[in-house]
Amino acid sequence: MTDSIFSQRGSKAELEGGRVLQPKFDENGLIAAVVTEADSGELLMVGYMNAEALKRTIDSGEAWYWSRSRQEYWKKGGTSGQVQKIVEIRTDCDQDAIWLKVKVEGNGATCHVGYHSCFYRRIEKTEDGEVVLAAPDQAPVYDPKDVYGKS
Amino acid sequence: MTDSIFSQRGSKAELEGGRVLQPKFDENGLIAAVVTEADSGELLMVGYMNAEALKRTIDSGEAWYWSRSRQEYWKKGGTSGQVQKIVEIRTDCDQDAIWLKVKVEGNGATCHVGYHSCFYRRIEKTEDGEVVLAAPDQAPVYDPKDVYGKS
Repeated sequence: MTDSIFSQRGSKAELEGGRVLQPKFDENGLIAAVVTEADSGELLMVGYMNAEALKRTIDSGEAWYWSRSRQEYWKKGGTSGQVQKIVEIRTDCDQDAIWLKVKVEGNGATCHVGYHSCFYRRIEKTEDGEVVLAAPDQAPVYDPKDVYGKS
Repeated sequence: MTDSIFSQRGSKAELEGGRVLQPKFDENGLIAAVVTEADSGELLMVGYMNAEALKRTIDSGEAWYWSRSRQEYWKKGGTSGQVQKIVEIRTDCDQDAIWLKVKVEGNGATCHVGYHSCFYRRIEKTEDGEVVLAAPDQAPVYDPKDVYGKS
């Protein structure tokens, strides 16, 4: 799926080596956006954008997403103040993923649970071979109740 | 969508704070996997896994994906030797994304175009406000013809 906001998909050579942004949106019109902290390089979150959200992000210099669960545009930090100021945007070889390097405003955290990054848990195997989630290995940096008014 | 290989999705509290891996697969049965180089932290690629690919990755310690374009299981490096040895696997707050920290075998590159990372291009605006892709800012590290037998 493409969208009239961006160019239609070209040949493999154009996608991989051309100068034209031709993002590939999936059958729901979405593309994955990987978000890292520009200074530290830490992986903060993965979000999804439709063409309009990608356009808003490029134009405004602040990250916009499409919320799959709420089915609405979502400016990150609109409620929490954790606005993602864009430092750099990249795409990959076949232009089906976006990478945002950002500086986070507000309290500097990203995760609504209270952690700096949404990826606060390892997947690990116990001695018995059971696959489990480890306890969070980041300390919470804020109390979501203070930001969202509920836990 | 869930899959019988992993536990069914639980409550918000269980997903965010529990010990049970309950990955969320989309309506195509896929979950996004962000891949970074363990040593450098560099973002290498984004792939997609179905439940079986995630299980194979956890069990084997090497990254498996589901190829959306070819509709088949894909062990990264099966042809190129660029096998991704798993150093750590993480998931995010709502368990709808996977993060692999890997060590890449073979020539150490990831991208089939010849670059170390698939994200070899910035998205930028020209002085006229046109959105374009910058020229690659990584040097190619290998010639795909030598690995895949074709460009």
